Amino acid sequence: MSLIVQKFGGTSVGSLERIARVATRIRSARDRGHDVVVVVSAMSGETDRLLDLARRAQERPDLRELDVLLSTGEQVTIALLAMTLQESGCAARSYTGHQVRIGTDSAHTRARIVHIDDQRIRADLAQGRVVVVAGFQGEDEKGDITTLGRGGSDTTAVALAAALGAHECQIHTDVDGVYTTDPRVVAEARRLEVLTFEEMLELASLGAKVLQIRSVEFASKYGVPLRVLSTFEDGPGTLIGPDREDNPMEQPLISGVAFNRDEAKITVLGVQDRPGVAFSILGPVADENIEVDMIVQNSGADGTTDFTFTVHRNDYARTLQIVRERTSQWRASEVTGDDRIVKISLVGVGMRSHAGIASRMFRALAAESINIQMISTSEIKISVVVDEKYLELGVRALHTAFGLEENGALEGGVSR
Amino acid sequence: MSLIVQKFGGTSVGSLERIARVATRIRSARDRGHDVVVVVSAMSGETDRLLDLARRAQERPDLRELDVLLSTGEQVTIALLAMTLQESGCAARSYTGHQVRIGTDSAHTRARIVHIDDQRIRADLAQGRVVVVAGFQGEDEKGDITTLGRGGSDTTAVALAAALGAHECQIHTDVDGVYTTDPRVVAEARRLEVLTFEEMLELASLGAKVLQIRSVEFASKYGVPLRVLSTFEDGPGTLIGPDREDNPMEQPLISGVAFNRDEAKITVLGVQDRPGVAFSILGPVADENIEVDMIVQNSGADGTTDFTFTVHRNDYARTLQIVRERTSQWRASEVTGDDRIVKISLVGVGMRSHAGIASRMFRALAAESINIQMISTSEIKISVVVDEKYLELGVRALHTAFGLEENGALEGGVSR
Repeated sequence: MSLIVQKFGGTSVGSLERIARVATRIRSARDRGHDVVVVVSAMSGETDRLLDLARRAQERPDLRELDVLLSTGEQVTIALLAMTLQESGCAARSYTGHQVRIGTDSAHTRARIVHIDDQRIRADLAQGRVVVVAGFQGEDEKGDITTLGRGGSDTTAVALAAALGAHECQIHTDVDGVYTTDPRVVAEARRLEVLTFEEMLELASLGAKVLQIRSVEFASKYGVPLRVLSTFEDGPGTLIGPDREDNPMEQPLISGVAFNRDEAKITVLGVQDRPGVAFSILGPVADENIEVDMIVQNSGADGTTDFTFTVHRNDYARTLQIVRERTSQWRASEVTGDDRIVKISLVGVGMRSHAGIASRMFRALAAESINIQMISTSEIKISVVVDEKYLELGVRALHTAFGLEENGALEGGVSR
Repeated sequence: MSLIVQKFGGTSVGSLERIARVATRIRSARDRGHDVVVVVSAMSGETDRLLDLARRAQERPDLRELDVLLSTGEQVTIALLAMTLQESGCAARSYTGHQVRIGTDSAHTRARIVHIDDQRIRADLAQGRVVVVAGFQGEDEKGDITTLGRGGSDTTAVALAAALGAHECQIHTDVDGVYTTDPRVVAEARRLEVLTFEEMLELASLGAKVLQIRSVEFASKYGVPLRVLSTFEDGPGTLIGPDREDNPMEQPLISGVAFNRDEAKITVLGVQDRPGVAFSILGPVADENIEVDMIVQNSGADGTTDFTFTVHRNDYARTLQIVRERTSQWRASEVTGDDRIVKISLVGVGMRSHAGIASRMFRALAAESINIQMISTSEIKISVVVDEKYLELGVRALHTAFGLEENGALEGGVSR
């Protein structure tokens, strides 16, 4: 009998009717012979309701007190789910973060888990109970309540799975898995059967908002297999696990095409090409707490360089102003910017061992006359920035070029 | 600098606006130089909302899980109050029941406090903080969350006051103190300055629902002075303290006239007067979890007795049926009942040392032609049952007869 951890988010437990459906999911896992530990979030809307109360009580809510307040959301859900399970004849018991000693540091509202005591959970499992644990919360060494920040319930689930040596950590969401790209852009987008942690990280950070980056990092660190699946529909979902390059035949070349519409780019033209220039440009931007995504620098022949980076569109105007104020000190000839761009990324661990992916990608875009404004690459990802009007066209072109609509995309690999 | 414990009920913290008023009360106590520990209930309506959710999740909600659910109500309030205090410049910190180790037995939904750890509270007070504690909740030895039942926040406040050796435990309500009788019945009803625990117990159990009986018992046991006062109006309220018979001059003869409209009486006529008859009648009633209030038995000359008792009106029909089914076994001649009765009670420790109170009471009722159906007496209380149509008349007659509308009712004492 293997142990699985099942996590259900706020939408999945948003009403008593939905909680009843969650209970059915849990019982069917039990019927298949699994021991089950369940992690739940607050009912959808509850966290926002509490946040609103907090902000009306205190202009900048005290973070310790905010955690006391917010943690009640999950506590309500665990009790209701345990009751619902019991009502359907399934023995169950609920635990708050402090009751299973989910020990965290003291960084209120964004605490990190440092320790979990699995004793009570194992005792209940041994007695045939489903154990329902409040996600998102823990307690620090002083006994103060902490919360883990947005997506914290995913982190709780993965941490519990790691601590208990679970066979699998199942993250139930309102989609039935991770897709090769956004089905709203490419109708032929296909659910992926498997994915590596690294691919999921690249896909998640690029906007495929199925899983929180942090929980994927956590799962990767502890080698906990993650499965993304639907709360409301049956299906195998997508399994995210350790790298399987030891069996390259099973490894698809490209896993997906991600994109991000929320970026804007800023270019500093003709900067003196000398050490420290990147820092002198990005330092003031970072000082304003503006996050920079892509960074590209091209050295010219004349001792000057063009320096381009992207930021969130909401930060565009502010960033442009910061950079323009400093143009003279870099002796830059000009600062230009564009907030009508998108980033399109090709992700796949298969590209590590296959040459020519980049050229194939660029050829596919060229065939549609899409001009590439920026290029950035990593081990398992190639990102390009193009005019936003080309988003759908570009994503579809790449999806087709790499045969993502077909099962077993390996056959479409360039090196074959 | 003396320590006071202030308790605010659900109505007092029913909205953020009301919580702000509570914060003002707390700060004014601080300004008068007190250390303050605050105990709060769930915002009004919240406990009922949670109970409703529980009942929809599980037909008979599991009591352990119900406590997990219900305890969130107070947790929300402590966080919001701590934030509100901070926002007004008053250092404050909140604690749940388990965080200040309010140790209880494991009787979920009606647990009893067995221990309180005052360490964290004292440390915070020493640092000049107001300490805000969730009422109504604790944890048992296993670390499970427990609740203390209705009125549990009063009990928490008194227990904390006892553990901390507080100068006073202030129970804030929506009335400004304990009255000589219900002002809606007698316009001249007067707020009492002082009252003994025993008197408060008699008044509370008779329907003056200002304080929970249990918290008064608790305060009495540990000698914690209680003060009932209004959340929303200034005023000294009513101080309830240890018996002060050592100074009888200060002891009013009669403290108040209580009454209860919720009773019904049942009489078993002509029962064989032999040992065990009371048990044989009331045993089956108790077996049905029906609470009996007054019990009166009068032995006749013919070896039979009339046995009368009162129950809550809601239990009247059921009780009558239970009793009637057994008439033959007692060889009783008849079972009669009446649910159109009220109980009126005169309460006062002063009557201990003064003769003639009862006769004065009966004379006052007779003067209004009110027929007395039952009489029951204790050390500090005389109760009569009369037809419900005489409620207002009887209460007013007694209020006047004992001079309760005047300050210093002692002068009206019969023995003077």
